[in-house]
Amino acid sequence: MDLDDLPTPALVLDRAVLAANIERMNERMRRLGVPLRPHLKTAKSADVARLAIAGHPGGITVSTLHEADYFLERGFADITYAVGITPARLDAAAALRRRGADLKIITDDAGVGGAIAAHGASFAVLIEIDTGGSRGGVAPGGPELLEIARRLDGAPAVTLAGVLTHAGHSYDCRDETAMAMVAEDERAGAVMAADRLRAAGFPCPVVSVGSTPTATFARDLAGVTEARPGVYMFCDLFQAGIGVCGRGDIALDVLASVIGQRRDENLLLIDAGALALSKDRSTAQLADDCGFGLVRDALTGHPHDGLKVVSVHQEHGIVACQSPIPFESFPIGARVRVLPNHACMTGAAHDAYHVIEGGSEIIARWPRCNGW
Amino acid sequence: MDLDDLPTPALVLDRAVLAANIERMNERMRRLGVPLRPHLKTAKSADVARLAIAGHPGGITVSTLHEADYFLERGFADITYAVGITPARLDAAAALRRRGADLKIITDDAGVGGAIAAHGASFAVLIEIDTGGSRGGVAPGGPELLEIARRLDGAPAVTLAGVLTHAGHSYDCRDETAMAMVAEDERAGAVMAADRLRAAGFPCPVVSVGSTPTATFARDLAGVTEARPGVYMFCDLFQAGIGVCGRGDIALDVLASVIGQRRDENLLLIDAGALALSKDRSTAQLADDCGFGLVRDALTGHPHDGLKVVSVHQEHGIVACQSPIPFESFPIGARVRVLPNHACMTGAAHDAYHVIEGGSEIIARWPRCNGW
Repeated sequence: MDLDDLPTPALVLDRAVLAANIERMNERMRRLGVPLRPHLKTAKSADVARLAIAGHPGGITVSTLHEADYFLERGFADITYAVGITPARLDAAAALRRRGADLKIITDDAGVGGAIAAHGASFAVLIEIDTGGSRGGVAPGGPELLEIARRLDGAPAVTLAGVLTHAGHSYDCRDETAMAMVAEDERAGAVMAADRLRAAGFPCPVVSVGSTPTATFARDLAGVTEARPGVYMFCDLFQAGIGVCGRGDIALDVLASVIGQRRDENLLLIDAGALALSKDRSTAQLADDCGFGLVRDALTGHPHDGLKVVSVHQEHGIVACQSPIPFESFPIGARVRVLPNHACMTGAAHDAYHVIEGGSEIIARWPRCNGW
Repeated sequence: MDLDDLPTPALVLDRAVLAANIERMNERMRRLGVPLRPHLKTAKSADVARLAIAGHPGGITVSTLHEADYFLERGFADITYAVGITPARLDAAAALRRRGADLKIITDDAGVGGAIAAHGASFAVLIEIDTGGSRGGVAPGGPELLEIARRLDGAPAVTLAGVLTHAGHSYDCRDETAMAMVAEDERAGAVMAADRLRAAGFPCPVVSVGSTPTATFARDLAGVTEARPGVYMFCDLFQAGIGVCGRGDIALDVLASVIGQRRDENLLLIDAGALALSKDRSTAQLADDCGFGLVRDALTGHPHDGLKVVSVHQEHGIVACQSPIPFESFPIGARVRVLPNHACMTGAAHDAYHVIEGGSEIIARWPRCNGW
C-alpha cells in the first residue's frame, strides 16, 4: 500500500528518520558513557521500543501502568513507571511484578513511602528528585529524601533502587548553553541526592536523569547511571524550535486530504483538525510560531514553504500562507502531510503508525498503546 | 463499582445531567417547531445517541465515516456526514449506503459534485452553505450553489437532498443577543440558498442548520427542517463561559487522583494531564479563563472553589489556587473531578464513559467510537 491509498487523517512514521534519530542519541550516550532507558510515552509502541533499546541494557520507561502492561506482554520486563505512584496503584504494580516485570515505581512522599513499605508485596522504588522542573520530586538537599529512604529501606520486601529526576524546565531553554546548564543541574541534583543517600547508609544503585534537551546537550553525566529521553526518537516542531533537532529530523507527521478551498481568503481546508493534530500550541512561545503544524509534501516529505495550519476545528484544519496558495496544486482530495508541534500529543490521537522508509510506500503498520 | 474504586484518569458522565441537557434542547426545538438531527461527534456513543434522538425522527450527524460505520452497526441508518466529502471517500460512502445507511454527504465544490455524479453509485447530497463561519460552504447568494446543483441533479443515481450550514462563528459570540443574531444569519442564509435552488427548479427538501449556541438562542427557525447541535448534551466550560449553559449543567468530567503536593508553591499534582484533559484552551479567550479545567469534588460534584488546572504535562496536571490549598484534604491518592474546557476534545482521549447518576455509583460503562 502507498500513502496515496491510505484513508486520511493517518499517522505516518518514517523509519529511516527514526533510525537516524535513535542512532544520533545513541552516539551521544556512548560518548557520555551512559546507557539509555528510553521513555516510551511518546512512541507507545513495541516496534519503536525494540529499535530504541538496541545497544542498551533493555530497560524502558513508561508513563502509565497500562503502558507497563502492554510492554510486559511484549517481552519488555525491565520497566520504570516514572509518574508518582499512589497507594491505590500498588496492587496493580504488585500484580505486574508477579507477572515477571522488574517494575520500578517512584515516589516523592514519605506517606506514600510508608504505604509502599506497609503493603507487603515486593517493590523496587526510586525516590523522585526535583532538580528544577518544579513538578514532582523532593529537593536533593532537603530532609524529605532521607525520611522517604528510611520508610522504604525499613521494609524487608522493598528495594530502595535509587533516585530519578526529570529536568522538565529544559523545555524553557532556547539555546544550547542554557540547555547544557539545565543538564548539569539535573545531573548534579540527582548525584547529590544519591551521594546523600549513600552517606546515610542507604543503597542507591540507580541515578536516573532525562529529557530530550538535556540528553542532547549534556556535556558530562558523571555519576549518572541511565538517561530517559523520549521524544528524540520522533522529534517535532517544538524540539526543532528550541534547537534540539532540525525540521528534517521529524520522523512523525499526519497525512491529510484537502477537503476545501477558500480562494477568496487564500485558505485550504484539510481533514486533519484538532483531534488528528491535537491542540498543542507549544510553538506559540517560540520565535517561529508553527500554528497547529506545518505542511509538507505528501509523497516527498519536502516542506511546502509557508503553508501552515493556522486554526483547527474538530475534523477541519485551516491552512494559510503568506503568499498566494497555488490552488491548482491542491485540488480537493490532494494529500499533504502535517508536521506536529508536539509528537507526544499528536501521536496519542491515533491507534497506529503507518510506517514508510523515505518514499511513500507503506512498509508496516505499528500499533500504539493509548489510554489508561 | 464506585468512582472511588475506578482507576484514574477516567471519563465520567452524569446521566441525570445529560438527560436534563437533552430535555432542555428538546423543549427549545419543540417551541421552534424543528426536529433535531443531533451531532454525535462529541459523544461518539450509541448509548448517548439513543437518548438524544428520542422524540425526534431518528436521524443523526457524524464527523467521520468511521462514526457512520459505528452508528450504522448499532441501528442508526439515517446519517448525515457533515464534513466535505472527497472523491477518494465516495467508495466508502457508497459501501455504507449498500449496507443500508441512508447516508447524506456534503460538498461545496462543483468539481466534487461532478465526481459524485460520475461515480455511478447512488448518493444523497447536501450542498454546504457558508453562513458566516468561513470554514466550508458556498455563499448562499453566489453562482457556485446553482453550478453544484446542476452537476448533482443531472446524475440519475444522485439525489440532491438540500442544503446544510454550520454557523461556527457563534462560538465568537459572548452574549445572547449576538448569538441570536448569528442564529438568524444561519437560518436566513440556509433558507435563501434553499429558495434559490427551488426557484431554479431543483429539489431542496432538507434545510439543515446547527450549532449549540445558535440552537440555544435562535428566536425563529422558519424554513429550517432540522438542527444539528452536538455539545449541548454534555456542555463544558467554554459553553458555560459564553452563556449557553451553567457550570452545573456540565455532564462530563475527568476523574483524577492527587499524585503530588507542592506545599511550598501551593500546588497539587494530579494524574489527569495533557492527554486526559486535552490541551484545549478555548476558555483563554473568555472573561473567566479556566486554565485546563476546574476542579470539583469527586463524590458530590460540587465545585472546589478556586482550584484550577493551570498547566499540564503528558500525565501530570498542575492544580493551583488563589487561596491556600487545604492540603490535608488532598492527600496523595485523593480523588477529584476536572470539568473540561471543551467536551469534544476531552472525550476523545478516552475509550469509554463511566456513567453515574448524581451520586458516585457507576451504573454503566458506555464505549466511545474514537479515531478514523
